[in-house]
Amino acid sequence: MKKFINHVDTLLDESLRGFAKAHQDLVDLNPEPRFVRRRQPPSAGKVALISGGGAGHEPLHTGFVGRGMLDAACPGQVFTSPTPDQMLSAAQAVESGGGVLFIVKNYAGDVMNFEMAAEMLDCPVETVLVQDDISLPREHEIGRRGVAGTLVVEKILGAAAEEGADLGRLKSLGDRVADATVSIGVALSGCTVPALGGPTFDLPPDKTEIGVGIHGEHGREVADFASATEIVKTLCVAIEEEIRPSPGQKVLLHVNGLGSTTLMELYLVYELAHEFWTRLGVAVHRSLVGNYTTALDMAGCSLTLTLLDDELIRLWDAPVLTPALRWGC
Amino acid sequence: MKKFINHVDTLLDESLRGFAKAHQDLVDLNPEPRFVRRRQPPSAGKVALISGGGAGHEPLHTGFVGRGMLDAACPGQVFTSPTPDQMLSAAQAVESGGGVLFIVKNYAGDVMNFEMAAEMLDCPVETVLVQDDISLPREHEIGRRGVAGTLVVEKILGAAAEEGADLGRLKSLGDRVADATVSIGVALSGCTVPALGGPTFDLPPDKTEIGVGIHGEHGREVADFASATEIVKTLCVAIEEEIRPSPGQKVLLHVNGLGSTTLMELYLVYELAHEFWTRLGVAVHRSLVGNYTTALDMAGCSLTLTLLDDELIRLWDAPVLTPALRWGC
Repeated sequence: MKKFINHVDTLLDESLRGFAKAHQDLVDLNPEPRFVRRRQPPSAGKVALISGGGAGHEPLHTGFVGRGMLDAACPGQVFTSPTPDQMLSAAQAVESGGGVLFIVKNYAGDVMNFEMAAEMLDCPVETVLVQDDISLPREHEIGRRGVAGTLVVEKILGAAAEEGADLGRLKSLGDRVADATVSIGVALSGCTVPALGGPTFDLPPDKTEIGVGIHGEHGREVADFASATEIVKTLCVAIEEEIRPSPGQKVLLHVNGLGSTTLMELYLVYELAHEFWTRLGVAVHRSLVGNYTTALDMAGCSLTLTLLDDELIRLWDAPVLTPALRWGC
Repeated sequence: MKKFINHVDTLLDESLRGFAKAHQDLVDLNPEPRFVRRRQPPSAGKVALISGGGAGHEPLHTGFVGRGMLDAACPGQVFTSPTPDQMLSAAQAVESGGGVLFIVKNYAGDVMNFEMAAEMLDCPVETVLVQDDISLPREHEIGRRGVAGTLVVEKILGAAAEEGADLGRLKSLGDRVADATVSIGVALSGCTVPALGGPTFDLPPDKTEIGVGIHGEHGREVADFASATEIVKTLCVAIEEEIRPSPGQKVLLHVNGLGSTTLMELYLVYELAHEFWTRLGVAVHRSLVGNYTTALDMAGCSLTLTLLDDELIRLWDAPVLTPALRWGC
């Protein structure tokens, strides 16, 4: 494994220290238990938004801590859930009278540990579960995974929380955004997990993994490698069959790189997806293209579509000032 | 070659169309001859800043078009210089009475083609040549290459141009920033050039290329793979021997990913470089970490150091609103 690393056991801490120094105007790092919190104090009574999950998906979630998005993020080791004491300490540090909202990607470890933290907290707590990955059927026994759509939930809830929405309102808004958001990914390669020293799975040179998870989980099918147009069509058709957007429906189209796919390719994928939706009469009203929810150095990308209404557009457009996402500030 | 691509000949155009659609609030694409221009009209008499070069380094340069940075960027095919008619058309489109400043990375094709465009233009033109890559000796016959430090020159000149600095002032400021900026990179792998269908060079599993160029050019030496601490020390020592910053000197430290290196690693590299400079008494006063000047999907990174003074700090901090770099707006 040829990576910039000293030791698997120190990778996360060394990296977080660098992250906190590089963004010291925006965030503070609590080293033990590990969490990153926003530096700019929220207004009194603001609901504290907290997310977290295994590292290896950077900039998610630590890169989204700051004004207009998360109040704190709890990183676990690579592809490993953070522990309840991280969420508990983070919540105690940033709660400022309005209660706590956890934004949780649907993985068994994350769900269990956030639940334990919620039980230990002595303030009002709600949880929004993100399960945007449509590669698994809705009735799958472990449910659908949370992937790149998590960013959309965090951005929109962050804006609403900044405006003073209360906990009940944020919970219902979060559930609504999560329901309106679907994603599906495709891998062209596996990714190198530091603790393994190698890839989580191998793809033959002529194959792609349609519906891959952000930890390299098996998706819908191993398909023959094809042109970008054909791959993008496969992903868009899967989304279309899931949500059947009406003509005129406004959507956010998010093309997310999984790690080692070039921006040049991601913009090409965006162009092809934009064409697909436009031909169906769907209005691509907002967009985001780049590496936001990665799977270490996996080659591949995902498409996320969020059905928008005027409220969601306003909240998406609201100012945000974080290490990885910033506009209007 | 497993990439998101339809055909090598259409890759750049399809990608640029997607880029322009995703950032239609900020930029316009001129398809033939190819250039990207800022959408927000500059104030009358502002010097027009134009850069360009081969594609494959995204977001450089197209991602830096917008308020407070470039007025236009001319992308060539992957790793291939744009043609003089691109620079000429771009200059004619965005010149608004203050003349034109070309910011050119030091590669023979780029230099020649920007020179030809300058000769054809019938308005005042100056050129700032960026040659920040210290991997080659200063007296090398083709001179030193322009790499990730180009972003620093573009950002600082963009801010000064927005403030109304005239062409002569921008030329001297640009030369000063270019002189104050040094970079050196390291590759852990080659990169996949679409037209070749494979890597520009192969590195054995136990080797790194110290001083690699952003097209995979051979650097200083092929070194044994080592710990992150040792690799970063090698890069920092090379920079230190070149510029010998005094204790107390304020610097901008830019860690740039070459394509497929994770953010987690880049922040770790930043942490180690920050430690190195801090131990020498150098003040890391500003920082930038991420994939800004890439070499397609190369694994690796570069370090850039710019010696700062109060004026450069003020211009670095000034508002910028482009697809890839934005703050203060």
